[in-house]
Amino acid sequence: METARLETFSDGVFAIAATLLILEVHRAHGSVAHGLVHAWPSYAAYAISFLTIGIIWVNHHTVFRQIGRVDRTFLFINVAFLMVVAFSPFPTRVLAETLRGGSRAGAFAYGLTFTLMAACYGGLWFYAAAGRRLISPDADQRIVSGISRSFLPGSAMYGLATLSSLLSAYLGVALYAAIALFYVIESSLFGRSV
Amino acid sequence: METARLETFSDGVFAIAATLLILEVHRAHGSVAHGLVHAWPSYAAYAISFLTIGIIWVNHHTVFRQIGRVDRTFLFINVAFLMVVAFSPFPTRVLAETLRGGSRAGAFAYGLTFTLMAACYGGLWFYAAAGRRLISPDADQRIVSGISRSFLPGSAMYGLATLSSLLSAYLGVALYAAIALFYVIESSLFGRSV
Amino acid sequence: METARLETFSDGVFAIAATLLILEVHRAHGSVAHGLVHAWPSYAAYAISFLTIGIIWVNHHTVFRQIGRVDRTFLFINVAFLMVVAFSPFPTRVLAETLRGGSRAGAFAYGLTFTLMAACYGGLWFYAAAGRRLISPDADQRIVSGISRSFLPGSAMYGLATLSSLLSAYLGVALYAAIALFYVIESSLFGRSV
Amino acid sequence: METARLETFSDGVFAIAATLLILEVHRAHGSVAHGLVHAWPSYAAYAISFLTIGIIWVNHHTVFRQIGRVDRTFLFINVAFLMVVAFSPFPTRVLAETLRGGSRAGAFAYGLTFTLMAACYGGLWFYAAAGRRLISPDADQRIVSGISRSFLPGSAMYGLATLSSLLSAYLGVALYAAIALFYVIESSLFGRSV
Repeated sequence: METARLETFSDGVFAIAATLLILEVHRAHGSVAHGLVHAWPSYAAYAISFLTIGIIWVNHHTVFRQIGRVDRTFLFINVAFLMVVAFSPFPTRVLAETLRGGSRAGAFAYGLTFTLMAACYGGLWFYAAAGRRLISPDADQRIVSGISRSFLPGSAMYGLATLSSLLSAYLGVALYAAIALFYVIESSLFGRSV
Repeated sequence: METARLETFSDGVFAIAATLLILEVHRAHGSVAHGLVHAWPSYAAYAISFLTIGIIWVNHHTVFRQIGRVDRTFLFINVAFLMVVAFSPFPTRVLAETLRGGSRAGAFAYGLTFTLMAACYGGLWFYAAAGRRLISPDADQRIVSGISRSFLPGSAMYGLATLSSLLSAYLGVALYAAIALFYVIESSLFGRSV
Repeated sequence: METARLETFSDGVFAIAATLLILEVHRAHGSVAHGLVHAWPSYAAYAISFLTIGIIWVNHHTVFRQIGRVDRTFLFINVAFLMVVAFSPFPTRVLAETLRGGSRAGAFAYGLTFTLMAACYGGLWFYAAAGRRLISPDADQRIVSGISRSFLPGSAMYGLATLSSLLSAYLGVALYAAIALFYVIESSLFGRSV
Repeated sequence: METARLETFSDGVFAIAATLLILEVHRAHGSVAHGLVHAWPSYAAYAISFLTIGIIWVNHHTVFRQIGRVDRTFLFINVAFLMVVAFSPFPTRVLAETLRGGSRAGAFAYGLTFTLMAACYGGLWFYAAAGRRLISPDADQRIVSGISRSFLPGSAMYGLATLSSLLSAYLGVALYAAIALFYVIESSLFGRSV
């Protein structure tokens, strides 16, 4: 399979999963104006999830530019990764429904999904990069090593934020938002050679 | 990233968001015939939103033809823009549910979303066009300037229509529909060189 | 705009609208086995709608192969056409919910949507074909004329089936199914040069 | 029609159907933590369905690489196949809702859908492969014969698992999961030349 078709399929799942998130946004009870204002946890959950999928989409491209060929194991790791990405509307809905009540279970489930996503994403990369198994011959080893180095802190950040949500749902959600913003800013400042 | 993949992804979000709008259309209570007829606010909200996304899709292409390359800041402004586009089924549902009651809050939230969409779209363009930062070398400066000039009245029209919905929900919705029709007619008459 | 991007966008709406139809399929009340069996109107509505969109998708390609260029009026007629295609999950749900009760209003609304779809599709074609306005210079006039001739009976068939649903919902639905099967069989037998 | 457009459309339906599955996942009643844990039948049904569609997607590509041209009959068999693929979120929801109660009807309906999917997929292939009707001239006959041989056991496995669900819902679901895992492992070990 050419990587192009794999990228198109992955992009499709990213776009659909991100766009389906809106089906989980609901007005709160009460008057229309009141219900719209008090739906803020839905908006926050929507924005964090959409942005996170957007960041993955942007980075997915950088990663795939280094890949020269794919094998079936790689394809199925990618299917598992997409399974977690496509799962994200569910914890987003749970977070939106339970954030006002401060449910730590809801915030933990949300973080767990994104930690799992980071782990699958890392697994996808390291399977391809180990011994340059699927890396394109003309890919620059410094870029390959740079991508490898960037995966560990990403997973660790999500894991820590997830654990912190057991202390406080709001702390966890604030950290999820901070991680997303960190990636947007860091990537905009230092990653201009798209 | 080639602009082609960015366009494909954006087109995907446009298509999905527009097609998801139908999930927000529901029959009104009563007999089947009565419920179908009295669901007219759902149909109106569906048509205005679908048409508006369709106009954005048509114009998005004209805009992207001027873009020669992208950087990460541009990618993330585009993600923010798509986040607002993908959000539109929610205010569409709110508008459909509340229009018969004349809820100004529902009409205002609807307009606010489209004003925000216009603002993000403008931000996307002016980031690329400022000093021809991302403009293709062979793009005609008159077309670039023409696109720049067209953004201001667009955002102003949406802003004014949104404010007018605070006076009357029906006035606001009539203006949203008028803006969409204006773009279709103006674009068909004067913008034939697609 | 190249017709390729227009086709991709249209294909996306076809695929999404057809796939969303399943969200309108629900079990009937009672035990699981009973509820699955008695959901047959949902299955019938799903199958007819999916097949109809599938037929449109297959034919859309034949039509677009004759098109050499597009203008903005054509783009907006296509947006209107896609608006009706994307609308189809709603009457499909209404039909599924009301067919067991024999609701003629539900069957009529369903047929009306597909008649409107045929009308928009015809409008799209005749706008392009009139005086060969947008027809590719190397398109065979016999094929162009053949497509033009095929539109009239199609719209008439849908219109008559829709009117017949006012006599009996079941008659109408039987005719909608018959039209879809007619197209599949006719097209398979006589239209092999895809 | 070029096979490329057919593949893109099919990939779109695969991606949308797989991503829509998440809309069928719901928390169980009770506290947030309890409801998340006891939703395990939803997670299991989601994972099996997503993985199965993922396997079909991977294999669909291998199959289509052998296809040199398409005719309308082939297109409509593909539409029927996609109709079954797009149907899968419905039995997935039924399975998730009824698995904890051990409903054999729910597990049977689930298996029936996947058996039908395998049958349509086989029909698609054998229509193309019979007398090499649509097979590309440069396709290796050993690969073509190998694909033909692989269809029969696949359909038989799904059929047997479906029948076994009439004895026990859990047995059936365990077999559906085992089939999916079998394909992933077998394909990763022996099918590396993607």
